[in-house]
Amino acid sequence: AFREEFMQLHPYDQSLFFEKVEPEIRKKIFHYLSPQEMAELFEATKFEEEQYDFYLKEMDKTYAADMLSYMYADNAVDVLNELGKDQVASYLSIMDVESAQEIKDLLHYEEYTAGSIMTTEYVAIPETSTCRSAMTILRNEAPKAETIYYMFVVSEEHQLTGVISLRDLIIADEDTLIKDIMNERVVSVLVSADQEEVAHMIKDYDFLAVPVVDFEQHLLGIVTVDDIIDVLDEEASDDYSKLAGVSDMDTFDKNPFQAAKKRLPWLIILLFLGMMTASLMSVFTETLEKVALLAVFIPLISGTAGNSGTQALAVAIRGIATGDIEKQSKLKLLAREAGTGLTTGLLCGIIVVGIVFFWKHDLLIGLLVGAAIFVSIFVATICGSFIPLLIQRMKIDPAVASGPFITTINDVISILIYLGLATVFISSLQV
Amino acid sequence: AFREEFMQLHPYDQSLFFEKVEPEIRKKIFHYLSPQEMAELFEATKFEEEQYDFYLKEMDKTYAADMLSYMYADNAVDVLNELGKDQVASYLSIMDVESAQEIKDLLHYEEYTAGSIMTTEYVAIPETSTCRSAMTILRNEAPKAETIYYMFVVSEEHQLTGVISLRDLIIADEDTLIKDIMNERVVSVLVSADQEEVAHMIKDYDFLAVPVVDFEQHLLGIVTVDDIIDVLDEEASDDYSKLAGVSDMDTFDKNPFQAAKKRLPWLIILLFLGMMTASLMSVFTETLEKVALLAVFIPLISGTAGNSGTQALAVAIRGIATGDIEKQSKLKLLAREAGTGLTTGLLCGIIVVGIVFFWKHDLLIGLLVGAAIFVSIFVATICGSFIPLLIQRMKIDPAVASGPFITTINDVISILIYLGLATVFISSLQV
Ligand SMILES: [Mg+2]
Ligand SMILES: [Mg+2]
Ligand SMILES: [Mg+2]
Ligand SMILES: [Mg+2]
Ligand SMILES: [Mg+2]
Ligand SMILES: [Mg+2]
Ligand SMILES: [Mg+2]
Ligand SMILES: [Mg+2]
Ligand SMILES: [Mg+2]
Ligand SMILES: [Mg+2]
Ligand SMILES: [Mg+2]
Ligand SMILES: [Mg+2]
Ligand SMILES: [Mg+2]
Repeated sequence: AFREEFMQLHPYDQSLFFEKVEPEIRKKIFHYLSPQEMAELFEATKFEEEQYDFYLKEMDKTYAADMLSYMYADNAVDVLNELGKDQVASYLSIMDVESAQEIKDLLHYEEYTAGSIMTTEYVAIPETSTCRSAMTILRNEAPKAETIYYMFVVSEEHQLTGVISLRDLIIADEDTLIKDIMNERVVSVLVSADQEEVAHMIKDYDFLAVPVVDFEQHLLGIVTVDDIIDVLDEEASDDYSKLAGVSDMDTFDKNPFQAAKKRLPWLIILLFLGMMTASLMSVFTETLEKVALLAVFIPLISGTAGNSGTQALAVAIRGIATGDIEKQSKLKLLAREAGTGLTTGLLCGIIVVGIVFFWKHDLLIGLLVGAAIFVSIFVATICGSFIPLLIQRMKIDPAVASGPFITTINDVISILIYLGLATVFISSLQV
Repeated sequence: AFREEFMQLHPYDQSLFFEKVEPEIRKKIFHYLSPQEMAELFEATKFEEEQYDFYLKEMDKTYAADMLSYMYADNAVDVLNELGKDQVASYLSIMDVESAQEIKDLLHYEEYTAGSIMTTEYVAIPETSTCRSAMTILRNEAPKAETIYYMFVVSEEHQLTGVISLRDLIIADEDTLIKDIMNERVVSVLVSADQEEVAHMIKDYDFLAVPVVDFEQHLLGIVTVDDIIDVLDEEASDDYSKLAGVSDMDTFDKNPFQAAKKRLPWLIILLFLGMMTASLMSVFTETLEKVALLAVFIPLISGTAGNSGTQALAVAIRGIATGDIEKQSKLKLLAREAGTGLTTGLLCGIIVVGIVFFWKHDLLIGLLVGAAIFVSIFVATICGSFIPLLIQRMKIDPAVASGPFITTINDVISILIYLGLATVFISSLQV
């Protein structure tokens, strides 16, 4: 009865159960489920990195190898990528030759490329087939293929020449030749393309799958929409973590030390940067001694600069991620940000002059703080958008320009502006 | 020749061209394309909000109404939602009755619910059909349905009782009854469910579509994967904007004043919060006058508190968005964050004591700054995770707790801690 009840569940729900239970129950599951059924469970979810190794070691070695061969090649590769080299080799050696070869081919591709997320279980049909024979091919391939809703039409040299959807196939006349009804303007990606490029293509064109080809248009595999959703999610999570200055938030840590490990790198880097700010500030100790009131506005000014810098940064990084910025000239973008900084800076500056004047009845301090706010917002906005663009030019992921980093940079700049101005006008301030 | 060339393009590429050209060229496009072809172009992309109104007014009124009726109902609703009430009514009045009714039904659903993103063009088949008759239904519905890869099996009362994929249908024997091979454990969502719930379901189960039902399990519509990709993208963009304190970054502004408008609200709110910090600080003017060196470390301390607060905030909000946090007890989460804050605070505090001591040769100032850093990180980490959890409890989107807001709160707290400690130990500091 356990087997019957368990097999009633969707593989995703099976995987949730599998993850939660004790090792003995998992042993039971291995006993009751065939390697093929276990493959479906394993494919339905993304476990945490270390867990792949852990679960595979709970299995019998041939059972594990069998399961891996029943998985879609892309998913098997995802699992094997989490294991040691020796382990991978040993599983591949006991696997059936065909599956092992498919997996070996995919293992070569670099992370984050189309090749690393594609699968080789697609339906290819020769141009010269009729719709009837295409349908027969389809029925045969259905149990193995990851999707049968798109068929990829290939030449004798296995070059991609067209695509036809099952939708078009089932309404076509059985005797029609595939090459007469196929879509010849097939969109494909290079195997070395960035996974984000594939993701944008699927998002923009509303495809269920995209064919992956080499430089000579040979069909190598396909990337399916379900995997693209995971890519988009990962990329969004990644950009989000970086904006907040946390290295990799993909998995939720139960342990405070693991969590601390992901946050300390940035905190410590920023601590040293902050020390630089402090040492720059100590140049102005004399000014601060003379007018202690100046210190009162330091958090306000550096905070505001940090905020506007983070805003500009986020807009730039999001624009790069969605591709919106690609379409525009970089110079125009900076001009626009300069305009935005000028507008927000001017407005905030004026507000500050007003508040400080009414509060401290000191127009000079008001003007000084207002001017510092104005210049700081202006400079911070330009830095916030310029730095990610510069980093992207250097072919580095622009998202490495984290929020805390930009904030700290803008701290330094804004304080230099503020205390610099104050030092110049110190004689008037003391009156 | 223009028509032929243009129709060779994928609708998404057509829409890119359409957006870029002058109004006269668009007039030409309306002339050459049938309302049905125009519908495909219009569905292929998301224009900016104001543009729907703009483009529709360029069209002939009946042409526009025809186009809307050829669109999938969910997409037509997306367009109509951007128009004025009178305009919507006038288009609906000249449209064919069936399409108008479909659209009216969908217009009622609240934004961000399953109802607001579902479409009514799905394939429903009676339980009692054979696979052969299901195939016939499918061929008839294929030109109209948004997806034919899933068929939804319904009772006589149109209640959802199962689902069958086209993949299973084409490999089944023609005489088999649908109810014998359908999947009875069909997963569905309520029409009032949050769109994020639908998105997580499609992401987790790798579905191409999810059926939407009412409380009595009547089938009302389906949500397809292409729309879910857009939902996930929107939600990610939304969370990202909020972390950075920019209201709505969905569209990329070409105009600095539009951009400023989206950034000013937070900047100004934070300016007033910053003024509060300043007024709190002025309580400590006497302390600052006595030991001007104290001011030098203010940006370092408030910056570090802000950074660790933002990190904790981002982890909490991302955890809520992905649903990871739901599965855990809130108390455990806070305990974990407290542990993380203690670890990171202690380490950073010790580093700071060391640096300040070696730099200023003043152990007391070093200890004071170190202690302030330690307590600030600890408190900021707890605030950063507690505030979003609290907001979520109040049934408000936790992402409203923006990064700049948390940063400012932590500014205040950290400075109070630092200057408070300094005031207590002032006599020793002056020695
Ligand atoms: Mg395989
Ligand atoms: Mg992979
Ligand atoms: Mg799309
Ligand atoms: Mg896959
Ligand atoms: Mg998958
Ligand atoms: Mg990225
Ligand atoms: Mg319609
Ligand atoms: Mg909609
Ligand atoms: Mg929502
Ligand atoms: Mg998935
Ligand atoms: Mg749709
Ligand atoms: Mg769509
Ligand atoms: Mg949200």
